[in-house]
Amino acid sequence: MVYRDIKAECYQGNLLLPAYKLIDLTFGNVSVADHDRAVFAIKPSGVDYTSLMESDIVVVDFEGQIVDGTLRPSSDTSTHRRLYQAFTGVRSIVHTHSRNAVAFAQAGTGLPCLGTTHADYFYGEVPVTRSMTPEETGSDYEWETGNVIVERFQQLDPMQICAVLVRNHGPFVWGPNAAKAVENAYALEIAAEMALKTLQLNPHAQSISQALLDKHFLRKHGSDAYYGQAR
Amino acid sequence: MVYRDIKAECYQGNLLLPAYKLIDLTFGNVSVADHDRAVFAIKPSGVDYTSLMESDIVVVDFEGQIVDGTLRPSSDTSTHRRLYQAFTGVRSIVHTHSRNAVAFAQAGTGLPCLGTTHADYFYGEVPVTRSMTPEETGSDYEWETGNVIVERFQQLDPMQICAVLVRNHGPFVWGPNAAKAVENAYALEIAAEMALKTLQLNPHAQSISQALLDKHFLRKHGSDAYYGQAR
Amino acid sequence: MVYRDIKAECYQGNLLLPAYKLIDLTFGNVSVADHDRAVFAIKPSGVDYTSLMESDIVVVDFEGQIVDGTLRPSSDTSTHRRLYQAFTGVRSIVHTHSRNAVAFAQAGTGLPCLGTTHADYFYGEVPVTRSMTPEETGSDYEWETGNVIVERFQQLDPMQICAVLVRNHGPFVWGPNAAKAVENAYALEIAAEMALKTLQLNPHAQSISQALLDKHFLRKHGSDAYYGQAR
Amino acid sequence: MVYRDIKAECYQGNLLLPAYKLIDLTFGNVSVADHDRAVFAIKPSGVDYTSLMESDIVVVDFEGQIVDGTLRPSSDTSTHRRLYQAFTGVRSIVHTHSRNAVAFAQAGTGLPCLGTTHADYFYGEVPVTRSMTPEETGSDYEWETGNVIVERFQQLDPMQICAVLVRNHGPFVWGPNAAKAVENAYALEIAAEMALKTLQLNPHAQSISQALLDKHFLRKHGSDAYYGQAR
Repeated sequence: MVYRDIKAECYQGNLLLPAYKLIDLTFGNVSVADHDRAVFAIKPSGVDYTSLMESDIVVVDFEGQIVDGTLRPSSDTSTHRRLYQAFTGVRSIVHTHSRNAVAFAQAGTGLPCLGTTHADYFYGEVPVTRSMTPEETGSDYEWETGNVIVERFQQLDPMQICAVLVRNHGPFVWGPNAAKAVENAYALEIAAEMALKTLQLNPHAQSISQALLDKHFLRKHGSDAYYGQAR
Repeated sequence: MVYRDIKAECYQGNLLLPAYKLIDLTFGNVSVADHDRAVFAIKPSGVDYTSLMESDIVVVDFEGQIVDGTLRPSSDTSTHRRLYQAFTGVRSIVHTHSRNAVAFAQAGTGLPCLGTTHADYFYGEVPVTRSMTPEETGSDYEWETGNVIVERFQQLDPMQICAVLVRNHGPFVWGPNAAKAVENAYALEIAAEMALKTLQLNPHAQSISQALLDKHFLRKHGSDAYYGQAR
Repeated sequence: MVYRDIKAECYQGNLLLPAYKLIDLTFGNVSVADHDRAVFAIKPSGVDYTSLMESDIVVVDFEGQIVDGTLRPSSDTSTHRRLYQAFTGVRSIVHTHSRNAVAFAQAGTGLPCLGTTHADYFYGEVPVTRSMTPEETGSDYEWETGNVIVERFQQLDPMQICAVLVRNHGPFVWGPNAAKAVENAYALEIAAEMALKTLQLNPHAQSISQALLDKHFLRKHGSDAYYGQAR
Repeated sequence: MVYRDIKAECYQGNLLLPAYKLIDLTFGNVSVADHDRAVFAIKPSGVDYTSLMESDIVVVDFEGQIVDGTLRPSSDTSTHRRLYQAFTGVRSIVHTHSRNAVAFAQAGTGLPCLGTTHADYFYGEVPVTRSMTPEETGSDYEWETGNVIVERFQQLDPMQICAVLVRNHGPFVWGPNAAKAVENAYALEIAAEMALKTLQLNPHAQSISQALLDKHFLRKHGSDAYYGQAR
């Protein structure tokens, strides 16, 4: 019962994916980490959301060993594991194939920050990873997927840009807890839909000014935030 | 209890936003003014629509002081306040991030009047504001947002064009009461979706003739209106 | 009670519009004619679909006089009346502002027959009317709207192409009864969505061959039809 | 009662079409074959999904004779029959007019494999058939539709690419059972929507690498599959 908290949070987070209409079929998963114990809870592979039970959730340690649960963990488990190792401030990771975000991933372009909806959640462009080499794809694919994400964030702060588009694949998104990580995945999909429509109207649409980006991101995040109610 | 009427109307109006599917997450708000008392009721900041209660509604006076309620008002309160000062005929204001209207705001183009659906609600193009300067953005941002709207309407009649697109942000829409203001926000989103699709088919699509614009707007608005049932 | 049949059919037909999601707000109406009595039943103007009652339906004769009902008929009544006069084989007419069909009307292009979904319902391109003159718009506008439709069908058979796009406005669709007319309006909207997406992929997409058009239209319509169950 | 199993599976499969929102009106059908008996069960023609009953399902043998049921089988029956003859590993076939897949069929282009969502289901591009000749269209049209599909697969393995786009018409999709065939039809529609949006962002978007295609298809299919739970 030692993992009860992260299993429950992981289970509830996975149920949010169909509630937000972020998931088709079984494309997607949510994990929740306990950095002190160096473990994370994750959805089992290929299990339908309508039949998922909290007891199905698998717990894996940061070395990749299953420490709780009888089902196979998500096939994307090694990607989550790599990210938890590298992004020590991240407590929950969400992977979806949400359609508009995937379109940018397949187009091979980052998601530019074209408006305040985007800026309320992401402090600048959401980047796209480079193509993986045949060697990376052919060997430990899911781990290498994590590696190209980490590589892409060498000059970026994952606490300020909490999402990435894996090229030709789809988004990975994160946050301080499962509910917030899923909310970020939903905000990403909305921003992607808005950006797609914006670029249809104006292929030369420009990113917003640094001043506007600062204003919107920082009024919701950080020590000077004034959006919402006082805690 | 002196503000009971506008608080109730404001609450009901806010509930219409998810009913019309105009809202994602907490992006949006409705306010209702009492010009005689120089106050308006507005949604509290960052409160989810599913848990919003009528008693959560905040009342603010035209100088910006909270006169009723215990929660923080919407972060957009100063924008609403500026508009009520300038547009004395407006009793309710709605702000959304509805996706098609946002696309035009992010593209930096006004919403042209391409058909009668638009003309039934808006007497010509729905304008887009200019970009705000770093100074405007960095200082009293929400108040300055109101100022660029007012500036944009110097040559326009807010009683004839009851909406504006704030550049890189989204629509503000108004009306004589909350239900009508939300209906106008919904009509704007529909007109924007139709315009986006029209421009995909024909990038050179023209605005409708003045005669057709007059016909449709004036058969629903003004003293010669004949749409609907006699009052 | 002499008009009970067409009022009931008209009422049921109007309720199908929101069921098929063809209607936003109050944009649309269904009428049903009794050619023997030279009258038709039509939705009252501006009445919300959620509160519409069968007793609200108005009956108008082919000269435009109200013969039953206490409410104002639809503002589009004269258009329906003009079409019933000209298209003697038509028993029900539907007007909507369905979004994809409106996009073609606003783009000023007919809806080309790009596939068998279209050909199952419409025997060729669904035409768009010419722009109306300021004189036509300024005088008896709704009647003149009917006139430009009739003019557009001078070389077309309304029994084979049961829809038209009124330029900068939206579709009028018809059929042998209200249920079939609404089904045709729904098929038009689907065909328009498919055509819009097709033209995004291939701006030079061609209309289907005459052989394929004949095959699909005639397997569902006319004396040699073999689609569905024997009557 | 000898056909009870395939009739029940066919009935359940047809009900999945509206559940997945793959069907408008009566455009679509599911069949299930028993290759040992050389028969297949199929939806009756033109029957609405809301009133369809299991006893309505028709059973046809591979020579085209009805062996069970009192209704006319789907007008597409000969196409299904032709495919069961040619593709002996296929146990269920689904035909839909799902809107994004139809857009590619109408545009006359195959659906390129632009990402891993596609690669999880289809081992490369989903091909489009050639245009049918007037002779093919004018004679035994539905049988000839099957023939152009079979012709298109001369160099392709229907076990690896379980879908085709019939030009100017729409998709036929197949699988080892009805539930899986409908799931494949749904995956096709999702992949088509993603591809359409990708090509809007980047008309030169490239198909994924062979290594990535191999990785995703083969981790879900074949003897080395590791997606999902062990059987």
